[in-house]
Amino acid sequence: MKNTFGNSFAVTLFGESHGDMIGAVLDGVAPGVPIDHDYIEKQLRLRRPAGTISSARVEPDRYTIVSGVFNGKTTGTPLCILIPNENKRSEDYTTDSFLPRPGHADLTGYNKYHGYEDRRGGGHFSGRLTAPLVAVGAIALTALRQRGITVGTHIKRCAGIPDRDFRNAQEDLALLNNTDFAVLDPDAAIKMKKAIDAAAASGNSVGGVLETCVCGLPGGVGEPWFDSVESVLSHALFSIPAVKGVEFGAGFSICDMQGSQANDAMRWDAGGVRFLSNHNGGILGGISTGNDLIIRIAVKPTPSVFTEQETVDLTKGQNATLRLHGRHDPAIVHRARVVADSVTALALCDLLALRYGTDWLRGAD
Amino acid sequence: MKNTFGNSFAVTLFGESHGDMIGAVLDGVAPGVPIDHDYIEKQLRLRRPAGTISSARVEPDRYTIVSGVFNGKTTGTPLCILIPNENKRSEDYTTDSFLPRPGHADLTGYNKYHGYEDRRGGGHFSGRLTAPLVAVGAIALTALRQRGITVGTHIKRCAGIPDRDFRNAQEDLALLNNTDFAVLDPDAAIKMKKAIDAAAASGNSVGGVLETCVCGLPGGVGEPWFDSVESVLSHALFSIPAVKGVEFGAGFSICDMQGSQANDAMRWDAGGVRFLSNHNGGILGGISTGNDLIIRIAVKPTPSVFTEQETVDLTKGQNATLRLHGRHDPAIVHRARVVADSVTALALCDLLALRYGTDWLRGAD
Amino acid sequence: MKNTFGNSFAVTLFGESHGDMIGAVLDGVAPGVPIDHDYIEKQLRLRRPAGTISSARVEPDRYTIVSGVFNGKTTGTPLCILIPNENKRSEDYTTDSFLPRPGHADLTGYNKYHGYEDRRGGGHFSGRLTAPLVAVGAIALTALRQRGITVGTHIKRCAGIPDRDFRNAQEDLALLNNTDFAVLDPDAAIKMKKAIDAAAASGNSVGGVLETCVCGLPGGVGEPWFDSVESVLSHALFSIPAVKGVEFGAGFSICDMQGSQANDAMRWDAGGVRFLSNHNGGILGGISTGNDLIIRIAVKPTPSVFTEQETVDLTKGQNATLRLHGRHDPAIVHRARVVADSVTALALCDLLALRYGTDWLRGAD
Amino acid sequence: MKNTFGNSFAVTLFGESHGDMIGAVLDGVAPGVPIDHDYIEKQLRLRRPAGTISSARVEPDRYTIVSGVFNGKTTGTPLCILIPNENKRSEDYTTDSFLPRPGHADLTGYNKYHGYEDRRGGGHFSGRLTAPLVAVGAIALTALRQRGITVGTHIKRCAGIPDRDFRNAQEDLALLNNTDFAVLDPDAAIKMKKAIDAAAASGNSVGGVLETCVCGLPGGVGEPWFDSVESVLSHALFSIPAVKGVEFGAGFSICDMQGSQANDAMRWDAGGVRFLSNHNGGILGGISTGNDLIIRIAVKPTPSVFTEQETVDLTKGQNATLRLHGRHDPAIVHRARVVADSVTALALCDLLALRYGTDWLRGAD
Repeated sequence: MKNTFGNSFAVTLFGESHGDMIGAVLDGVAPGVPIDHDYIEKQLRLRRPAGTISSARVEPDRYTIVSGVFNGKTTGTPLCILIPNENKRSEDYTTDSFLPRPGHADLTGYNKYHGYEDRRGGGHFSGRLTAPLVAVGAIALTALRQRGITVGTHIKRCAGIPDRDFRNAQEDLALLNNTDFAVLDPDAAIKMKKAIDAAAASGNSVGGVLETCVCGLPGGVGEPWFDSVESVLSHALFSIPAVKGVEFGAGFSICDMQGSQANDAMRWDAGGVRFLSNHNGGILGGISTGNDLIIRIAVKPTPSVFTEQETVDLTKGQNATLRLHGRHDPAIVHRARVVADSVTALALCDLLALRYGTDWLRGAD
Repeated sequence: MKNTFGNSFAVTLFGESHGDMIGAVLDGVAPGVPIDHDYIEKQLRLRRPAGTISSARVEPDRYTIVSGVFNGKTTGTPLCILIPNENKRSEDYTTDSFLPRPGHADLTGYNKYHGYEDRRGGGHFSGRLTAPLVAVGAIALTALRQRGITVGTHIKRCAGIPDRDFRNAQEDLALLNNTDFAVLDPDAAIKMKKAIDAAAASGNSVGGVLETCVCGLPGGVGEPWFDSVESVLSHALFSIPAVKGVEFGAGFSICDMQGSQANDAMRWDAGGVRFLSNHNGGILGGISTGNDLIIRIAVKPTPSVFTEQETVDLTKGQNATLRLHGRHDPAIVHRARVVADSVTALALCDLLALRYGTDWLRGAD
Repeated sequence: MKNTFGNSFAVTLFGESHGDMIGAVLDGVAPGVPIDHDYIEKQLRLRRPAGTISSARVEPDRYTIVSGVFNGKTTGTPLCILIPNENKRSEDYTTDSFLPRPGHADLTGYNKYHGYEDRRGGGHFSGRLTAPLVAVGAIALTALRQRGITVGTHIKRCAGIPDRDFRNAQEDLALLNNTDFAVLDPDAAIKMKKAIDAAAASGNSVGGVLETCVCGLPGGVGEPWFDSVESVLSHALFSIPAVKGVEFGAGFSICDMQGSQANDAMRWDAGGVRFLSNHNGGILGGISTGNDLIIRIAVKPTPSVFTEQETVDLTKGQNATLRLHGRHDPAIVHRARVVADSVTALALCDLLALRYGTDWLRGAD
Repeated sequence: MKNTFGNSFAVTLFGESHGDMIGAVLDGVAPGVPIDHDYIEKQLRLRRPAGTISSARVEPDRYTIVSGVFNGKTTGTPLCILIPNENKRSEDYTTDSFLPRPGHADLTGYNKYHGYEDRRGGGHFSGRLTAPLVAVGAIALTALRQRGITVGTHIKRCAGIPDRDFRNAQEDLALLNNTDFAVLDPDAAIKMKKAIDAAAASGNSVGGVLETCVCGLPGGVGEPWFDSVESVLSHALFSIPAVKGVEFGAGFSICDMQGSQANDAMRWDAGGVRFLSNHNGGILGGISTGNDLIIRIAVKPTPSVFTEQETVDLTKGQNATLRLHGRHDPAIVHRARVVADSVTALALCDLLALRYGTDWLRGAD
């Protein structure tokens, strides 16, 4: 379905980095979900580059919701959110030569769109399109909270520096909610920022791993084939630019365990099932267990670096070297954190709507 | 869409481990693709447990194709493949107690289906359903080959023992095609088999990482949002039971690189673009670059182990301990190899049909 | 999505007229729906040609359900129903000449499948594929009844002879349930049968209009754009071979009314809304009103007639004349009646699952 | 999929009658399709109320395309078109009483959205949302023309007055292209306008039948089950507000023919197949024959009439009478003509993209 994700609860994304506007349409949202503008703005602010460790173009993200909201609540009809591109460049680019930037989508966009694509600033591939995704994601996160489902993400690793694991998920999520730089261990946070600064100083960039936790998801959500919770979440998460890996629970490290260790033992507790570990990340057979979901995504280092790079000139059909100028992010992993939250929330809303119907996220009546 | 995967080229899966039949419907396949029964049987044989390192129930997988094939070629109408369950148990299970097996989908199936599920042998969650998936995957692989696209998978790691990396992809894929135990380094193969035997001897199990390579995929396939090549492939791959992680190119290890290292430099070569590395796994901006696709999936150790495990009795609402009996696989990673090939092929056929139309896989006219 | 219909509740159809088997996969059915074999067989019998007014090939339709049912109830996992083709011809057809039959899909099948299609008996286009559709439709009808939703169809017109309108829908549906030839007015039934016999005697065929009524559908189901109740039902109904028109409520005759007449006045009645007429067929703005759904479909006369017909020879590239032999139905409208019920039920289940979730059709707990 | 229509080529619609903006996102459009603003504006003008026979609110429809277009051509990425509501009323409506208007979606919107819907001017159900549909439809129509496929619609009947049938489709379509009031017979046009004026004078309204013809569609497009050309077109067409019937070729009147008459005879002509009649509307077995498509839709009389009507007060739970004021269209059938063209074009683009790939509509290279 290309630029639409979801069946019962769906998001459609549009726009280019230097076009007039970017935006998203959210369809299938339950009627009556309150629109919390402070929260939307907070989420957008966390996505924006800011401070010394982000040096790219800064935009205020002055969004407007032009449909689907009435008297401060969702109507249940499609909600369209628009964000104008205020910093866009009006100039066109030259066609005398075309040097695709390594690590970017310049080459693949050209292959796919035959040169008709708007290449300025990455066009439709730009990470800037995550802004409307975060805006509608904030609405999905609000809807989930009405049902007691909370989502939060921390930087599990950046430039090789690890954060501590989640300990008490509820407390850790509350902590992350009040932190701009989403790291649980304050010492790790300091080290990571230094590493980002160092990469920036050398004209280079660093990547990282984001770990997302979902608390309160009911058991029984997801499908064995082919819409497992892992399938639907990974489909959405791999749409985030720069993500090259997705894993759940112990993830790739579960491959080195033995079965007796990998299995999560169960105990009867207060009328329900409690797990003694969570190597399966809250999912068995593609279906939620009721345990916390644990998701990690690999975010590659920003491909815009200032060192000289080898590329080709597609217009002239020959080798070329490229040296980028201007302002670029030395890391995006700290900004992608709210994108991970948003995309996770959007995908969960679709899975929940399939099982409980589109009205369920109105909250308990 | 639950038990159907794909839009233009779609597979629907049905059946339970101890029901009458399992099967799959393949829809959107181009007319005129030859049905190579030797190849289908070979792929099914590779999926079956065999020899000392697999000790679970063995079935001949006597498939029949009941529709969509005429005069040895696909008609273009839905192809249904059926595989009877010949070794199924006729007995019912007790309802006096229900002890969900740790690491299995017993608990989540119960949560989802309210006790109406057929729980025998894992029911619809059983790995046995990968048999029809492999059978239709063989047809997808044949269709891809007509367009010069080849797919192959090796065990990149098993029980902690690594195989060597792909070196010359075309040669390595040819090598794998003629190997039952899909490991490129013969010494590593011997060590892995020993480790699997050791796990079996101790009533335990081991997992591993599968690495798939796709050669010959044209550039320009996939969508920036939300049907990236990574999104569509991971959606399909996470449907394989026991998969807990999916990564592309350098995957999670790209997070520890700097941008200058992670970017794949390009050179002009024979009228096209050649990459000097493949950290991005043949995908940029969600779209194929023309470089080989490199995909890795994490396969957890078989959850059926013979050690005593802590679980609950859902009927009685109390703690319980469980000790499994019978015959179980000490590893499935070597069998899952053809499942990875099959699922990858099915997902690629859908991506290609979106871009080039459903007729394209008939082969060049 | 081609051969799959539905998002949350989906049916996939496969098979050819003279292949080994035809069948259907039903996915998204709620767990716990009882399988009533008497009812399935009754519905299949009503679809089969029988008696003097149907003279085509007769098959017993010995269906088996090979998955998705356990202990007599649906499990919630995909249900596959198979019907072997017992009367199939083993001979191949000649390729020296190919004379597409007028009114049939021979020409279009050839255009689409490039000659690879199985042309025997209409292949995948055969009305015989409505048998598995009726079988899974019977399960959908059972599920709907658990929620108080009933569906019934009568022959509103055949060979120009009209039946009376629905009067008391509940009573009329009960009457139709006990009638093989679904006409409300017994005199009309006699006249219609005579007209069918007359057509048969002259080697010709007749068509008719089927009118379906749905009682008990809750208000608020359907979507304004683009999944209106009319959109989803017509999508499904136009899949039935020979259907050339679909209308709701007053249908095409509403065009000749004035607005004051076409509007259905409302009255407050027993705590709810009652309509004084039903020109809108129970649907306003694409959404169910709570009033009965009224749907009519136009079924064209069987294209197999014994008069000489002008066609072409596609192999030789020249004009040709064609005279059909063998046994053919002089009408299918009376047999299509259960197909209309079935397809309506399948489409409604999908609309209901979208709104209330896939579990809703388990019935009130 | 609710507010998105199409799989490979998809349109998403959003907005309310008195919200800030209405709009549409078009996804899957081939790169390089020229944007013809004169044509878009012409189509929008034909949809707008105008002259004596339309008296409703008039808006200039000042659209902007904010994404997906670069240098005057489509980029291939999602195209978003926005139309501000300039005449919207700022006042809120009372909640002391709620009298749903007969024939409108007021009641069903309330049932579906629980009172959270924006009810002003019909909200999301308003015919005003056909404006962005016409705008993106103009782009689809342009894309089809590049491949020699033309679409046109005339008023086949209005207030009981018939227009003549299509004679020479190509010439008739050219004629309609240059006519604001789309009637082929000038006398019929005069009579229809008079009838509309008469209805307006008496505070009432009239409906009509629109007949659409598509020339140049290749044979072999569409699917036997369930995405027949009829299924996909009717799905889209029933989304147009006020449509209560859809028929193809002879439509409902085919039911009164005998098979020998209903079948379209074929002749060999200039290396291809020519049909001697078109009772099947260019579609056999759900697949295009290469003959012209003939589609008719029933458009009900505008439900806004000035006579006193019986309704209920949903707030007070009692009977009520309602008398509408203000300006309302006495007919919409003449305005719906470009909506029919647009929706037909959008649906055809999706069918063509499935068969030939999303790039095909770039035109012949």
